[in-house]
Amino acid sequence: VILRLAIIGFGNVGQEFARMLLLKREWLLRSKGLDVEVLAIATKTKGSLLSRTALDLEKALGHLKASGTFEGLPEYCDLTPLKIINHCDADMMIELTTLNVETGQPAIDHIKAALDVGMDVVTANKGPVALAFDELRDRARARSVRFRFEGTVMDGTPIFNLVERTLPGCRVIGLEGILNSTSNFVIGEMAKGLSMDEAIRGAQARGIAEEDPSLDIDGWDAAAKITALANVLMDANLTPRDVEREGVRAVGSQDIKDAAEKGKKIKLIAMAARSGDRIRLTVKPQTVGPDSVFWSVDGTSSALRIQTDLMGDLTIVESGPATTQTAYAVFSDMLLTVEAIRAGTLC
Amino acid sequence: VILRLAIIGFGNVGQEFARMLLLKREWLLRSKGLDVEVLAIATKTKGSLLSRTALDLEKALGHLKASGTFEGLPEYCDLTPLKIINHCDADMMIELTTLNVETGQPAIDHIKAALDVGMDVVTANKGPVALAFDELRDRARARSVRFRFEGTVMDGTPIFNLVERTLPGCRVIGLEGILNSTSNFVIGEMAKGLSMDEAIRGAQARGIAEEDPSLDIDGWDAAAKITALANVLMDANLTPRDVEREGVRAVGSQDIKDAAEKGKKIKLIAMAARSGDRIRLTVKPQTVGPDSVFWSVDGTSSALRIQTDLMGDLTIVESGPATTQTAYAVFSDMLLTVEAIRAGTLC
Repeated sequence: VILRLAIIGFGNVGQEFARMLLLKREWLLRSKGLDVEVLAIATKTKGSLLSRTALDLEKALGHLKASGTFEGLPEYCDLTPLKIINHCDADMMIELTTLNVETGQPAIDHIKAALDVGMDVVTANKGPVALAFDELRDRARARSVRFRFEGTVMDGTPIFNLVERTLPGCRVIGLEGILNSTSNFVIGEMAKGLSMDEAIRGAQARGIAEEDPSLDIDGWDAAAKITALANVLMDANLTPRDVEREGVRAVGSQDIKDAAEKGKKIKLIAMAARSGDRIRLTVKPQTVGPDSVFWSVDGTSSALRIQTDLMGDLTIVESGPATTQTAYAVFSDMLLTVEAIRAGTLC
Repeated sequence: VILRLAIIGFGNVGQEFARMLLLKREWLLRSKGLDVEVLAIATKTKGSLLSRTALDLEKALGHLKASGTFEGLPEYCDLTPLKIINHCDADMMIELTTLNVETGQPAIDHIKAALDVGMDVVTANKGPVALAFDELRDRARARSVRFRFEGTVMDGTPIFNLVERTLPGCRVIGLEGILNSTSNFVIGEMAKGLSMDEAIRGAQARGIAEEDPSLDIDGWDAAAKITALANVLMDANLTPRDVEREGVRAVGSQDIKDAAEKGKKIKLIAMAARSGDRIRLTVKPQTVGPDSVFWSVDGTSSALRIQTDLMGDLTIVESGPATTQTAYAVFSDMLLTVEAIRAGTLC
């Protein structure tokens, strides 16, 4: 079977995903009977590629690395992503543009366009799931296509798929986690004696934090993630603006020292809890002790505790992730979507 | 759709599973279109029940609680479990007899008999998976039925289902975990000042440890679990006798104090690692520091770290489990089996 992809957004994750497709090409053919072809790649600043037949991914990656643009390749074009989605013959759209936490755009429009032309959609962008989940889910169902988003929270660590595929019949009662790597890394560095500015610059130098770190430091990234989780796993139908949000910006070195003197650490904890008919979402710095499952979740690691009715509490921890893990989220969603197509189911 | 069950072994887990079936009866009908009927329950010492139509589970549980036996109920019989498996009309056999770590019997024979008459099989007994996995898996495949065993390790926490259903394309490179609750609880109590004997009696009083605690204290339970994990997730084809095994029996209060003085705890760690073409399995007490993901896994909690090629390292922690969680393992395996039957797949 041939599976034809359009990749919209081609930064680190997109490029790593393309390398994974090359690396696993033989395995996909042999074990899954799957011949994955990429027909289009759209970017905001590096031009786009569009073809009727499979792009040569190795060549495209090499050209991009050498020249910083797709210009010069025969499949180069300067169509907008929306035009590419509407004009390419892909079966599946992989949405990897960057987060806009206020509007979720342009990702939401890309996803709507792809669903409307009958494509299955996989995204690693948390905006659409945090801001428009119910609408996109219903739209996908109405078109009989699939919408998957494992990479939006904790990279490729299975969270959505874990609940959907391994906890049948369980109701999620509450969620609690360390979801923003930058904040966790910065507080950890401050505990070693650095100032917040120094810690942020260190995170930027390692490629953990963006040039504008405010999305992380002010708690917006964690807010978007806990909203995405609550929308999908607890039917919350909320947006990041509904989160009681306090980032780590106001955490001082003295606070960290005071906590340490009491044998505690400060962690940025995101929570979702049922409160009557409502779901209450919070993101705020909290102290945790050595008996907490979050105690050892340091550096860029992250963790999520899931409270359920039938299965009690379970926690999943991702240790020291890299871009590979986010690319794997897309890869696994692609495979699970193909499985669903073959089984004739919608998720 | 009617799903007819035979339950072989009816201790705490079996009874809790029966209560879960009663509790979720409406949900099963409404959400899954599934009418679950129990046609047979076999026990070693309490007699058995066998019927052509659905047993009244509430009545059976009540009678058992009141009189300690099934004798007196109209469906009472004294056939052996094997005869019951061969004579009942069930679609699925739920195997819940107790572990024999040397032979895996009588569970292995029960499972073979059920597979041979075309039943799907769900078990929470780790013996068959630790001692005869390849044979049982192949037998199930040859009969086009399913064999599931999520409850054998870490109760209902998804481990086997996690790897199978949410990590497609990932190769498991290594496993490391705290898998035996009794050992973990006993060492924790010793750290509070109790002797090992006192700690074991405390575990027995709480229903954590068996009357004969040697399976736990000598590392056999952990050995059976790491073997089951390695057989399924790493194609090890080994038995618990192949494990380099050292339980917590030789751990003294002084060892725990010495570790504490260095800021460490002692934990019984089970590991599976690739070593050339072989899989090496070990169970032994090890010291862990506060930076370890196992540091906060105290009391009866357990944890497993899974190292993979594409998704890096992830750890799943089960906090303070109860019988409900093991019953849920059986419940979830039952549902996933029904899903597989409907999709026409074998797992």
